[in-house]
Amino acid sequence: VTLGELGERALIERIRDRVDAPGPRVLLGIGDDAALMAWPEPSLLLTTDTLLEEVHFRRATTTLRDVGAKALAVNLSDVAAMGGVPCVALVALAIPARCPVSDVDDLYAGLAEEAARHGVALVGGDTCASPDRVVLTVTLAGTVDGPPLRRSGARPGDVILVTGALGTAAAGFAALERAPLALPSETLAIVHDAHRRPTPRVREGSLIRASGAATAMMDLSDGLATDLAHVARESGTGAAVRLGALPVAEATRAVARALGVDPRSWAVSGGEDYELVFTATPDEAPALAARVRAETGTAVTVIGEIRPASEGIRFLDEAARPVAVHPGFDHFAR
Amino acid sequence: VTLGELGERALIERIRDRVDAPGPRVLLGIGDDAALMAWPEPSLLLTTDTLLEEVHFRRATTTLRDVGAKALAVNLSDVAAMGGVPCVALVALAIPARCPVSDVDDLYAGLAEEAARHGVALVGGDTCASPDRVVLTVTLAGTVDGPPLRRSGARPGDVILVTGALGTAAAGFAALERAPLALPSETLAIVHDAHRRPTPRVREGSLIRASGAATAMMDLSDGLATDLAHVARESGTGAAVRLGALPVAEATRAVARALGVDPRSWAVSGGEDYELVFTATPDEAPALAARVRAETGTAVTVIGEIRPASEGIRFLDEAARPVAVHPGFDHFAR
Repeated sequence: VTLGELGERALIERIRDRVDAPGPRVLLGIGDDAALMAWPEPSLLLTTDTLLEEVHFRRATTTLRDVGAKALAVNLSDVAAMGGVPCVALVALAIPARCPVSDVDDLYAGLAEEAARHGVALVGGDTCASPDRVVLTVTLAGTVDGPPLRRSGARPGDVILVTGALGTAAAGFAALERAPLALPSETLAIVHDAHRRPTPRVREGSLIRASGAATAMMDLSDGLATDLAHVARESGTGAAVRLGALPVAEATRAVARALGVDPRSWAVSGGEDYELVFTATPDEAPALAARVRAETGTAVTVIGEIRPASEGIRFLDEAARPVAVHPGFDHFAR
Repeated sequence: VTLGELGERALIERIRDRVDAPGPRVLLGIGDDAALMAWPEPSLLLTTDTLLEEVHFRRATTTLRDVGAKALAVNLSDVAAMGGVPCVALVALAIPARCPVSDVDDLYAGLAEEAARHGVALVGGDTCASPDRVVLTVTLAGTVDGPPLRRSGARPGDVILVTGALGTAAAGFAALERAPLALPSETLAIVHDAHRRPTPRVREGSLIRASGAATAMMDLSDGLATDLAHVARESGTGAAVRLGALPVAEATRAVARALGVDPRSWAVSGGEDYELVFTATPDEAPALAARVRAETGTAVTVIGEIRPASEGIRFLDEAARPVAVHPGFDHFAR
């Protein structure tokens, strides 16, 4: 059965049946003109992101279940980067009428899985027929208990830290585009999963903010080079990153060897890792890193230092010499 | 200068310069991972809608300024339909890199105009390059002071009322698609404007809800036949509408005559009028209608009556005989 045969009303009913498990704060979910939440919190965080077929994903290498999960995950990552707690999401979906109904089922299965993992209720949205490709826009609302952790608070002398490993998603993307690679399936699974199903660092972000020890935070969506430049610009600083300190997974190194690529280029410019980059004073950074590791099991690595603005953003090799790096992803640049 | 030449960062800065006039409740607008609002209200209304080029608009007949305004207006209409007050909006834009930067300026000029008209702050969003067409998703957050007015509260015997006139937007769409028509420019301007720049009935919706006299409300986006069926289904009722009672503007009648169309078909099935349909008991309806007219200047017309579910949804001619009507717009049906 195609979506064109099912029709809009039956489609909305189908979606409602699949996702309408309203949380305690949801007074009205899918089915009226707007969703209504009880909102006793004094703060409201809002963020939105679009995933476009052929731009952010290709159906040849990714299932719609993964696309659904990822569309929510990238928004969760934005809330994590403020140290917030995600609460409710809206889903605007444009999809060709010729697609089978199972495509929408798959997409919402992924959305619902990711939502359940983070205690998020899917409360509404919009559906329309797209002439050619799937377009999925998720909007996430959350809250933050006190001031959020912004991009603008880094100061010269602060230590730069990241969660998890860098370049894994880029390795996964490269491995999928250049498949098949002669590598163990466990190795490929690690990098494929990082690309298809990023793990937003929601608990980590909340903990880092609540500690009071961090000075700035941002999530890594366009690559360290681009995103650290945002932190430096908003903070009015420069930054120095030691390439040798960047955390790179063994699986990423294996894919890089197979493809003849320097894995550090993925770590610096690859994008879509959805790890957190944050800053803290040298006094407070070690205890903060240890606490995040202990409470979440997620690695935290010191990768460099915030510097005066006059020094710009520098990536340094083992001999502390600046290395030119690719600037990372720009949606519009050719 | 194209968007590809400008690049993503400069584009975001440009948007930020144009729209970042944060309202009193906006703690963080464009430029961080998520927007942050002080939210002392106990309720949160959320709604989202996508406008797709070649589906919802064509650049040959509509400016991007109008598209920007309309993308916000259709969301304002959803908040109006709950009797809510709109507060802040997010904009997710996918647009081809080959487009001139002035396209984005035009789009945001329209968004900013509509936002200013309703006291809404544009607080964030997402931009990405689209391979072929413009895709604009706006998410609107608002609040409602007490229980919202739902679709589900209509009861048999209630009177059905609508704001404004019906079929004007459909007349405008038809006039644009069949241009040039030999009609006075003032006539064409009325119907073109209704199609390009719908007027969300925000004050009217808030007043209707606050009166306590209305039993159900919804905005008319897909046409009266489709949308009244939603109200009836959610309320567990039927409905009877007198075709002769439908408010149709003189300009709509003139376009219908020029095109040889029955204007009542636009009023019933045309869609995109973004008027409000609401219900009230026969005792309370006259005073409610008079009050909305007096306080907003907007026409309010009684068009029929809520009936038991067993009678279904009927459209009646002058002799009270049921007439078959087109079911209205379904995004997926062919």
